[in-house]
Amino acid sequence: MVKKSEDFDEWYNEIVEEAELCDKRYPIKGMNIWKPYGWEIAQNIDMLIRKEMKRTNHKEVYFPLLIPEKLFQKEAEHIKGFGTEVFWVTHAGDNELEERLLLRPTSETALYSIFSLWIRSHADLPLKTFQIVNTFRYETKMTKAFIRVREIHFFEAHTCHKDFEDAERQIKEDIEIANRFFSMLSLPCVFSKRPDWDKFAGAYYSIGIDILMPSKKTLQVASIHQYKQNFSIPFEIKYEDEDGSHKYCHQTTYGMSERVLGAIIGVHGDEKGIALPSSIAPIQVIIIPIIFRGKEQQVMQECEKVKEEVKKLGLRCSIDDREKTPGNKFYDWELKGVPLRIEIGPRDIEKNIITMVARDGIKKEIDRESLNQLSKEMEEYDARLFSSAKQFLNENIHRMDKLEERDGIIEVPWCGKEECGHEMEERTEMKSLGIPLEGEECDKACVICGGKGKYWLRLSKNY
Amino acid sequence: MVKKSEDFDEWYNEIVEEAELCDKRYPIKGMNIWKPYGWEIAQNIDMLIRKEMKRTNHKEVYFPLLIPEKLFQKEAEHIKGFGTEVFWVTHAGDNELEERLLLRPTSETALYSIFSLWIRSHADLPLKTFQIVNTFRYETKMTKAFIRVREIHFFEAHTCHKDFEDAERQIKEDIEIANRFFSMLSLPCVFSKRPDWDKFAGAYYSIGIDILMPSKKTLQVASIHQYKQNFSIPFEIKYEDEDGSHKYCHQTTYGMSERVLGAIIGVHGDEKGIALPSSIAPIQVIIIPIIFRGKEQQVMQECEKVKEEVKKLGLRCSIDDREKTPGNKFYDWELKGVPLRIEIGPRDIEKNIITMVARDGIKKEIDRESLNQLSKEMEEYDARLFSSAKQFLNENIHRMDKLEERDGIIEVPWCGKEECGHEMEERTEMKSLGIPLEGEECDKACVICGGKGKYWLRLSKNY
Repeated sequence: MVKKSEDFDEWYNEIVEEAELCDKRYPIKGMNIWKPYGWEIAQNIDMLIRKEMKRTNHKEVYFPLLIPEKLFQKEAEHIKGFGTEVFWVTHAGDNELEERLLLRPTSETALYSIFSLWIRSHADLPLKTFQIVNTFRYETKMTKAFIRVREIHFFEAHTCHKDFEDAERQIKEDIEIANRFFSMLSLPCVFSKRPDWDKFAGAYYSIGIDILMPSKKTLQVASIHQYKQNFSIPFEIKYEDEDGSHKYCHQTTYGMSERVLGAIIGVHGDEKGIALPSSIAPIQVIIIPIIFRGKEQQVMQECEKVKEEVKKLGLRCSIDDREKTPGNKFYDWELKGVPLRIEIGPRDIEKNIITMVARDGIKKEIDRESLNQLSKEMEEYDARLFSSAKQFLNENIHRMDKLEERDGIIEVPWCGKEECGHEMEERTEMKSLGIPLEGEECDKACVICGGKGKYWLRLSKNY
Repeated sequence: MVKKSEDFDEWYNEIVEEAELCDKRYPIKGMNIWKPYGWEIAQNIDMLIRKEMKRTNHKEVYFPLLIPEKLFQKEAEHIKGFGTEVFWVTHAGDNELEERLLLRPTSETALYSIFSLWIRSHADLPLKTFQIVNTFRYETKMTKAFIRVREIHFFEAHTCHKDFEDAERQIKEDIEIANRFFSMLSLPCVFSKRPDWDKFAGAYYSIGIDILMPSKKTLQVASIHQYKQNFSIPFEIKYEDEDGSHKYCHQTTYGMSERVLGAIIGVHGDEKGIALPSSIAPIQVIIIPIIFRGKEQQVMQECEKVKEEVKKLGLRCSIDDREKTPGNKFYDWELKGVPLRIEIGPRDIEKNIITMVARDGIKKEIDRESLNQLSKEMEEYDARLFSSAKQFLNENIHRMDKLEERDGIIEVPWCGKEECGHEMEERTEMKSLGIPLEGEECDKACVICGGKGKYWLRLSKNY
């Protein structure tokens, strides 16, 4: 296998299949098969965000996949943004359909015609919903597992509010949710308010959430959008206010895709394989029996006992009792990113210990009576993943007064004019990520026009 | 609302929206919106079958939705069966696709070209997989929520085996799984080996699993198929046997759809609403505070305490603290089918009891110290649902020597000839469900030709 340190993108392309996350041999470009291990991780990621949604009183719904063309065309910017990348259903059986249907690339237009029926009065607000669905985009660029695919496993939250302020409160909540969610995955991320020319099709403004990959290119894993009334007006999502007047809702969305898994693979993986944060690892603790002739039964019994005790701690634990050498088993589980490995052999039993090795190489002997230490060990492993990812990110964000080419993310003074932003993109061959959310002031001169800098504009190469 | 006892089908059509399971106003016929309550129930149903799959070592996968036309055409019977009811994607963006893609109506043809890559040797067998996905059928008949829809929430297990016998063992396991699954839902079901003219497109034989609805029409909720080598030959799913020879696999499938929910609504519901088996109820125990002026705090505190204790029993429990009268709350939760209701008022607190009312009307005072009795009460509630459903089924299966019109399911002697079967269907205006699995002999004369009866053929009107 290619080395991660030598050719990250090639390593990534190989590891997704080596670790049995997906199979790329399906005969349609960009549509891959989720293998059992990959799908279980995806479902664990879904459960994390579901928990956050429940905590914040969002309700899960499921809307149809197909969208009638007329609905899709109601918001002009939206169709401009997505029109060239949707799949069209034109026939059913032997008949041509009277109206073409499209496969959702995202579900605004499917949900909003119904939201207009669900919302009648201010008492119905805020309406907070989400769904986890398959979406479709006809990507013409090179596809890449989890990162650029044509059928996308997608999370999307959609909310309606009585006014702009309440929608802004929602955006703050979304940022908090994203922060919690990505820290559970030990992934440091960068929030940027996208420049106007790169906001979501139909949005008033967009916040992009980016992860810095080892290639020093950024990967947008999620986004949060303030729609204001851009959709509620064409879709007539109105409510009767307390004073009897009728008003259009303000709306927001928070979207996230299987790219989250792509980021986990990229950021935490190493030459041995992927490394999973414990929150989403299908197996958190793998027990490897170290068998010597004559001791099989004793070792296996001890393994079973330890497994039961570890499970009682609330950890997902399995024994690898396949007919393979311990070395081969180590290799397999490192490849698949299991957070903790426990080795149990006659010597461990004799010494009344277990030998624990974390996926990042930290090795410890743990007292047989102190198995509950494993929870702490797992937390520490997660924290180590997080801190080395943070360090990598910090080392690769460069705040500069001049426009110089650097790997990673650069932040340069910008006057706020679109043409200067474009000029920066062209000169650096980077894309603007946007400006920091904190709204920090910048008093240096714009690197293009020399005019008064208003913002620090972030740029990077990206996926 | 229409009465269930007076017009079941109309009651059904109304209750699915009244109980907030779905919204039928989406602008494409037969594609409904799953509302939060309905979707949560659907996910709980999915979890039940997932547990069964895990118990029997099936692995969950996710294959792409779109299938290239060429793949779909590999098995001749299959395309004959489904060809007239698939949705076709012909364009993407502004381009016409080189090859048409169809939305999976079921996933045989998507999975099997890849199974041929996954299976190399006898050591790879049996291969046991399943997926839970959205499938699509262009229904031309009248649609009905959960029962006849165009986007279907679908479960499908696909297995590959070294020989016919091992595939037969799988079918036995599937029957056991189905029995366990449907009893967890308190649904008695009827297994029939479908007549040849009604088997699944491409199957060697099919077993249908039918539920008798209150309209006395049957609803096929699931099916199990023996494919033999009908798909493995065109898809070249081969393995190297221990003796070095190359053989085609034998295959089976087990499919089940959101119709399961339709059956639950139909079979268990009553004039008050739906009635959920506890296994899938989003709320198993609802606590209604009975508030008298001046006692608010005391009652709410007691409700909170009881809720925590009930949760510790492993039951899903909520307090309804909305500003509504208890009567209105009773109405809402009966409509939504919550298994157990607990009422707590000052009098209950004084008497040191709680008042429990099961969804089917059984009322009990339970000692405050004996809350764990609730688990037993819930089991008994489930058992009562099951037993009244069984009674209804038993009363409506009629074994007869002559062909008479009867409501429900009839079983009549049949010589086994296709034309006699068709003749029965025509005369009764019923459809054949097939013959009992037990293979029980029949020594009466065929009701059509008078020849030697071989089987009891089941017939019914159906959905």
